[in-house]
Amino acid sequence: MGGPEPYDPVEKLEDDMKLFDGGRAPNPRRVRVFLAEKGLTVPLVPVDMGALEHRGEEVAQRNPLRRLPVLELDGGTVITESIAICRYFEELHPEPPLFGTGALGKAKVEMWQRRLELNLMASVAAAFRHIHPAMKEWEVPQIPQWGEANKPKAIEFLRLFDKELAEREFAAGDAYSVADITGMIAIDFMKPARIRVPEECTNVLRWYAALTSRPSATA
Amino acid sequence: MGGPEPYDPVEKLEDDMKLFDGGRAPNPRRVRVFLAEKGLTVPLVPVDMGALEHRGEEVAQRNPLRRLPVLELDGGTVITESIAICRYFEELHPEPPLFGTGALGKAKVEMWQRRLELNLMASVAAAFRHIHPAMKEWEVPQIPQWGEANKPKAIEFLRLFDKELAEREFAAGDAYSVADITGMIAIDFMKPARIRVPEECTNVLRWYAALTSRPSATA
Repeated sequence: MGGPEPYDPVEKLEDDMKLFDGGRAPNPRRVRVFLAEKGLTVPLVPVDMGALEHRGEEVAQRNPLRRLPVLELDGGTVITESIAICRYFEELHPEPPLFGTGALGKAKVEMWQRRLELNLMASVAAAFRHIHPAMKEWEVPQIPQWGEANKPKAIEFLRLFDKELAEREFAAGDAYSVADITGMIAIDFMKPARIRVPEECTNVLRWYAALTSRPSATA
Repeated sequence: MGGPEPYDPVEKLEDDMKLFDGGRAPNPRRVRVFLAEKGLTVPLVPVDMGALEHRGEEVAQRNPLRRLPVLELDGGTVITESIAICRYFEELHPEPPLFGTGALGKAKVEMWQRRLELNLMASVAAAFRHIHPAMKEWEVPQIPQWGEANKPKAIEFLRLFDKELAEREFAAGDAYSVADITGMIAIDFMKPARIRVPEECTNVLRWYAALTSRPSATA
């Protein structure tokens, strides 16, 4: 329980596509962790977000929103949005299922992926982008009061999530899913956002430790 | 092209479940429009959001985030998050497909549903909640500067979306999907948020007119 699961020993190379990747940023990492869990390798095109390269033409001509990651398929078709890219690979390579199985299982993964993204990751991102001095050029205007208002939202959600995790191993049930990927990366993102998991949230801490011990966590 | 599509004449009654519904609010409406497009009828439990009833125990014991809509299945299992509820019905009743078909088609619906939700609907919601006097008790603290910062984000996205709609009928391709539902409701939500579609966005206006002429729009 909770330890790393074995990867599919056959690595599937998706060499007819390329993934414009943003290094340490949370969203590009969501896709890399997902691919690692699937045992898939996609050629990466590194984009230096620290140097604001994602605002340049190479990205803009593929994603006018100028955000990463961007998946370009053979022939030039583009898919953006981390979860949309993950869903594309889920359809092509259904095993192991990371978006749930059955109507109720799929709905629960969707529900928890969204809860973790909209209540935890979005709050952490707002705190980081609206407060951190390094984000001044990224978030215009920076509104520190909005950043501060988001910190208690993240904490409040973690307390609620902690009660849920008392009854099960993973975010959406007994199986690892894309909801766990979003949650793990949101918690990692709390460090630069200077928000800490309350120490009484022992179920969250147990869950986070299990996720970060999987080989995919370093992707 | 663009006109209402015929509904499945057989109305399927999902009377072993109930949907806690929030009337005019955007998220509950997303699910009602989705059900109308599927030709499904689910017993509704009305909750008066104007009287803050969604903060009460009836909702909280089912959704600790105290938000609507909430779907309760026979036996008490609960699904929250509009898109998770929609996906549950998509799995049970695949026709007509509203989350796309095939790996690329599903990825495109996911991509556009997210783009419309995160760039348009979320910006409109932030403008409404952080500026409108009626939202003082809902959004604490109200930060008018953050509300104002979101208005140009919504407009900027609409200009980008307008270029996309020059080449196709619906948000994610040639078929109506859940992405269109999110987009239509986001535009309706612009009225109380006091944001207007730029008149040069003629493709957006054509698309919006087609969506609002479908029988499902009044759901």
